[in-house]
Amino acid sequence: MTITASQDQRLNRRLRLGMVGGGRGAFIGAVHRIAARLDDRWELVAGALSSDPERARLSGEDLLLNPDRIYGSFEEMARREKEREDRIDGVAIVTPNHAHAPAARAFLEAGIHVICDKPLTTTRQEAEDLAKLARETGLVFAVTHNYTGYPLVRQARAMVQAGELGHIRLVQVEYAQDWLATRVEETGSKQAEWRTDPARSGPAGAVGDIGTHAFNLAEFIAADEVASLSAELHTFVEGRRLDDNAHMMLRFASGARGMLWCSQVASGLENGLRIRVYGEKAGLEWDQENPNSLLFSPLGEPPRIIRRNGYGANDVSRAASRIPGGHPEGYLEGFTQLYTDVAEQIAARLEGREPDSFSLQVPTVEQGVRGVRFIEAAVRSSEGKTAWVDV
Amino acid sequence: MTITASQDQRLNRRLRLGMVGGGRGAFIGAVHRIAARLDDRWELVAGALSSDPERARLSGEDLLLNPDRIYGSFEEMARREKEREDRIDGVAIVTPNHAHAPAARAFLEAGIHVICDKPLTTTRQEAEDLAKLARETGLVFAVTHNYTGYPLVRQARAMVQAGELGHIRLVQVEYAQDWLATRVEETGSKQAEWRTDPARSGPAGAVGDIGTHAFNLAEFIAADEVASLSAELHTFVEGRRLDDNAHMMLRFASGARGMLWCSQVASGLENGLRIRVYGEKAGLEWDQENPNSLLFSPLGEPPRIIRRNGYGANDVSRAASRIPGGHPEGYLEGFTQLYTDVAEQIAARLEGREPDSFSLQVPTVEQGVRGVRFIEAAVRSSEGKTAWVDV
Amino acid sequence: MTITASQDQRLNRRLRLGMVGGGRGAFIGAVHRIAARLDDRWELVAGALSSDPERARLSGEDLLLNPDRIYGSFEEMARREKEREDRIDGVAIVTPNHAHAPAARAFLEAGIHVICDKPLTTTRQEAEDLAKLARETGLVFAVTHNYTGYPLVRQARAMVQAGELGHIRLVQVEYAQDWLATRVEETGSKQAEWRTDPARSGPAGAVGDIGTHAFNLAEFIAADEVASLSAELHTFVEGRRLDDNAHMMLRFASGARGMLWCSQVASGLENGLRIRVYGEKAGLEWDQENPNSLLFSPLGEPPRIIRRNGYGANDVSRAASRIPGGHPEGYLEGFTQLYTDVAEQIAARLEGREPDSFSLQVPTVEQGVRGVRFIEAAVRSSEGKTAWVDV
Amino acid sequence: MTITASQDQRLNRRLRLGMVGGGRGAFIGAVHRIAARLDDRWELVAGALSSDPERARLSGEDLLLNPDRIYGSFEEMARREKEREDRIDGVAIVTPNHAHAPAARAFLEAGIHVICDKPLTTTRQEAEDLAKLARETGLVFAVTHNYTGYPLVRQARAMVQAGELGHIRLVQVEYAQDWLATRVEETGSKQAEWRTDPARSGPAGAVGDIGTHAFNLAEFIAADEVASLSAELHTFVEGRRLDDNAHMMLRFASGARGMLWCSQVASGLENGLRIRVYGEKAGLEWDQENPNSLLFSPLGEPPRIIRRNGYGANDVSRAASRIPGGHPEGYLEGFTQLYTDVAEQIAARLEGREPDSFSLQVPTVEQGVRGVRFIEAAVRSSEGKTAWVDV
Repeated sequence: MTITASQDQRLNRRLRLGMVGGGRGAFIGAVHRIAARLDDRWELVAGALSSDPERARLSGEDLLLNPDRIYGSFEEMARREKEREDRIDGVAIVTPNHAHAPAARAFLEAGIHVICDKPLTTTRQEAEDLAKLARETGLVFAVTHNYTGYPLVRQARAMVQAGELGHIRLVQVEYAQDWLATRVEETGSKQAEWRTDPARSGPAGAVGDIGTHAFNLAEFIAADEVASLSAELHTFVEGRRLDDNAHMMLRFASGARGMLWCSQVASGLENGLRIRVYGEKAGLEWDQENPNSLLFSPLGEPPRIIRRNGYGANDVSRAASRIPGGHPEGYLEGFTQLYTDVAEQIAARLEGREPDSFSLQVPTVEQGVRGVRFIEAAVRSSEGKTAWVDV
Repeated sequence: MTITASQDQRLNRRLRLGMVGGGRGAFIGAVHRIAARLDDRWELVAGALSSDPERARLSGEDLLLNPDRIYGSFEEMARREKEREDRIDGVAIVTPNHAHAPAARAFLEAGIHVICDKPLTTTRQEAEDLAKLARETGLVFAVTHNYTGYPLVRQARAMVQAGELGHIRLVQVEYAQDWLATRVEETGSKQAEWRTDPARSGPAGAVGDIGTHAFNLAEFIAADEVASLSAELHTFVEGRRLDDNAHMMLRFASGARGMLWCSQVASGLENGLRIRVYGEKAGLEWDQENPNSLLFSPLGEPPRIIRRNGYGANDVSRAASRIPGGHPEGYLEGFTQLYTDVAEQIAARLEGREPDSFSLQVPTVEQGVRGVRFIEAAVRSSEGKTAWVDV
Repeated sequence: MTITASQDQRLNRRLRLGMVGGGRGAFIGAVHRIAARLDDRWELVAGALSSDPERARLSGEDLLLNPDRIYGSFEEMARREKEREDRIDGVAIVTPNHAHAPAARAFLEAGIHVICDKPLTTTRQEAEDLAKLARETGLVFAVTHNYTGYPLVRQARAMVQAGELGHIRLVQVEYAQDWLATRVEETGSKQAEWRTDPARSGPAGAVGDIGTHAFNLAEFIAADEVASLSAELHTFVEGRRLDDNAHMMLRFASGARGMLWCSQVASGLENGLRIRVYGEKAGLEWDQENPNSLLFSPLGEPPRIIRRNGYGANDVSRAASRIPGGHPEGYLEGFTQLYTDVAEQIAARLEGREPDSFSLQVPTVEQGVRGVRFIEAAVRSSEGKTAWVDV
Repeated sequence: MTITASQDQRLNRRLRLGMVGGGRGAFIGAVHRIAARLDDRWELVAGALSSDPERARLSGEDLLLNPDRIYGSFEEMARREKEREDRIDGVAIVTPNHAHAPAARAFLEAGIHVICDKPLTTTRQEAEDLAKLARETGLVFAVTHNYTGYPLVRQARAMVQAGELGHIRLVQVEYAQDWLATRVEETGSKQAEWRTDPARSGPAGAVGDIGTHAFNLAEFIAADEVASLSAELHTFVEGRRLDDNAHMMLRFASGARGMLWCSQVASGLENGLRIRVYGEKAGLEWDQENPNSLLFSPLGEPPRIIRRNGYGANDVSRAASRIPGGHPEGYLEGFTQLYTDVAEQIAARLEGREPDSFSLQVPTVEQGVRGVRFIEAAVRSSEGKTAWVDV
């Protein structure tokens, strides 16, 4: 275990966060909330959590927001927060795509920093107008192309920028899933419904939902821009109104060439975001389903496995790591589970009810005793010519 | 993307947490704090964060604790918290091993639930006394054998318990690292110092530090107890006073046989905790460095790859998952990084200073625009017989 | 070890083989010769092994051919073999691409079965004329798209044909190498020279050399034909006259879509031939660098790892296997190495010289004794309560 | 593709081989025959292929041996071959274990070099007597611990010997299968019968059959000897008379420590032979089921993947390679399959029968034409702004 400085963020100023969208039934809103509190730099204090005012209210109560700061619409929220002394420092916009632009505009105009889900908008004009406004206000405006937050993605970009791959020739990127391989949108899945509805998703399906992630990742790591592309969008599932698969050939500004594949019908693939970059001097591979490794292949040498926060990790990726190498990032969730299980057990007692049965798996003091007996037995056996010793 | 219910814990009662140990320079304390807040069920409100009172005070200030509740010793903390109306619901004990028992005892006697790091104590007598006390008080007492919090570890245990492997014959477990392959304890590493010091670690080195994790995992997944063992502890690094490698043969109560290897000198292994269990009907493999997959091999059939929260995941593991299958758990940290970077940028403005340069990697509205232009270009190309279109 | 019927081919009739090309300095000729003798169904008896008569003669002598049957040209060989009572049953044509067609034609006209390396010819007209001639003669005419000889490739095709994937939607195929990432053709590599020379390779470089393998594999496994394609060929290495990279989008006759990537400049990839096929009901993945596994992912179930000749292997793949599952096919070469080393040692004695030093690694009777002592020690220790026993 | 010198062995003297055992129903005999001919340095000319004279005769006829040289017993074969002018240069002994020693002795006494299957004998005394005799005769005596023939196994040993790992501390070796997880020996499997019969296998089951391979591999790669061991042999399948699982702790002469696990009841493992060696400076891992890669992990650097005959391969391993890196060794079998299929098709014609249907999968001239059309279409599309072109 290489012990590194942890990112214990209480040392730093904490900020106030508002949220638009992300109420009951939403997926990504909860992810944004976890992301906001994991490093302890944000506290959620206000929300317009649904376009339906009643749902917005209930969702706000779920999250224990001050009733004062549970809003029925983003317009109201922007207007009233602007007037508060303790107004939110930033707002997270996690609505379906079509609502990003008006909400973002409202908060920019209120002087509030914006964190917006991707894709930014559903039309190019809207996007460019919004970017112009953001530039004019000078406010921070982040788009959650979240894959750029992975330590080894940042390492990859830094290696490209440092010339470790030489001039880049090829970028192969893909993002393939299978969750829309059948007509899920007709089974009541809220997620599938809006993602296959042109009115809410814009002109593209898979391309907008996940192709943009692949595209962003390609430009981010290659540290280059796609100059032009040739694309074939295709809809495999009958009756679906947007593409569920796309193939593209890419030409980068620098002269590099690439391919991009995105799919929601690739049977057997859960969330296969993967990128490979080849330069004159070396190649790189990264796969989101195994994000703690980066394969680096200098031409003429054995490929090297760079591990997050491990040997070969650079400053850029270390700065984005919380735990030592070898502990995959799920380590934190595993650890969290114990705390949550204990909380459930204690809360159940306080509330005079049975705890959720899943919470009972947490190791107890009896397992602690087993551990100590194990150590003692091991030492005793080893001292006694490895004799068999009872535990 | 299979959309599953997120664990958005604000819905639930939040509890008050105290901490013993984990101040400046500690590693595991910060991990405990992240774990406590990730699901938003705990708030850290009190601490005796170091055995050195001055360090305890500074560490408490770092964490923005109310000065009232920054204590110079765990004894003081237990005594005074007990008297408060809003006293802590639980305490996390994250000191070096030798201090676990007295601290745990103090809080149990104060009627406060305990979360204690492993190994529970440094002697068997102490451990059994503590367990007896815990049983008598009836309080929750959890030991952070954190690997049992991984969804697929719980799934594995449930599969064994359900008889999916048949009668268990073999358990092969190992936990091998390389961070003590050289004499690190003489280079100023606080982590290495106490772990190689019998006074603070107890009678075992690698066995106590990581062997206990392997042992716990073996008993947890096999749903069985080790009845006896034959062990050889060995110290490879000259001058070290505790074992840095151990080999063991195990006999389980059920008649199963096993081997256990733990090492801190296995050059090239970062944190190789891995377990394999073979029964009459099937085998299982799980590797902590790739925790989102569980290999299940029914005798006479092709092995199957069960993914966390994916196809084949059972209720037990789903209950411990926060995000859809295919998103490895590092997904949350990646997402978090963006929020933290934005917080840094905003905080820097509020404080009139330059933001940390690493925080500037967060995607901006300009990347958002690129994404929208990408979608539009893709649609346009596809409509135009896949003609090349500028992005 | 699942014991299966071995393919011990001496039971079967052996045939006489001739070869065109494949003399000194050639690569693929030697591979063809090993392939011909491994199953013991062919004996090489004649050759026109180079277009240079002197080189042809020397190469024939190397291979211990009867001087009578060492020919200076394929024309002579075809003419004279035709007249022999014991004429060759088949001829292997392993010349550079441009010479395939005239040689094949000559042997077809002599009534001799043909095994021809790929690509068949350098122009479409030549290819179609040759196919017409082959059909007219009714002779066997095989093209060594050798990847179709892998057991699991055949299994994959059979699974597609049996409908186990449902209607095929997507075929992603790639063949990427890095051996031409620099200007190797100017360093004296005979292999690189002709492959980058339009006069000998035809109109395409990477596309002809390896793209054709990928294309063949895609059509073979998908059991479908590519109806049309959109391609971008590119030359990255300055001064090279043929493409060293190509990106393509594919449309299959059945309506499936696909992508094909072939490259000789992908730094770090040795011989990355890989195919993935996704149907309505399941997906398949196969990677030539790990050819003993086939990943089969039925929609909604955990992916399964089918191993060559192992659990889940079907009749088609078993028929093409020589050894039990779990023994990767390199097993035979490993075994061979011992025989070859022993031959070298014995030959050296017969010839009164020192054996090649590499041959001395073969285990001797002393290692055999060690093995027996190991068994005895193991039994003795186990009988004696696992006491330590000297070996 | 890194083009390397092929091992085209016709250049070298060919030797005459005899075989004892390996007749109808045997497994390993056929493997020995393939191994003998793959490099074309041996020709099988004589055999005592079964201890049953009638079976020996039929087996010899199967292999097209000269009736003169089909013998009813190894004694007869040794006696008569000794007298021939063209007597065998070497004999391969591939009988069950108990017959190795008398056969080997007979041929040594006849002045014939010996290749003997492992384990050498069933008792230590027999083994040492045999070794003494071999030393006295000065004849070549090889034991087919075939895993030492893998190129990367030899590379690993050479790296250890060259000090690239520093002083060796740990050797973890395992060989685990599942084919005896049930009582197969009662289902008519000849292989299982003799392997579980003490009279034919000697005092050990799994330990003798596969434990010896693991042991040999450990000593070979570590370039060291096991000084002592502590073992627990176990029989899991009721009624079986020999061990089907064993756990051992090892102490090497140099002071290194190790563990050895061999099993025939590890459900889901086909042929899991795997070794890991850790020294003061670096670690190594090799897995027989993926034999073309060797993981090399220098302490403090990213692990490197050394590929057979690829980047990082040393002279020792190159000398044992037949094909370029990236072509896994199964490449030769895949190639062979095509030749065998064509032979089958031609033979069927010559014999006026239908060919085996499996042989019809070989690519024909029509696939060859498809390949050429593919190239042409690709070039045409690329020249025409990547327009879609029919294939």
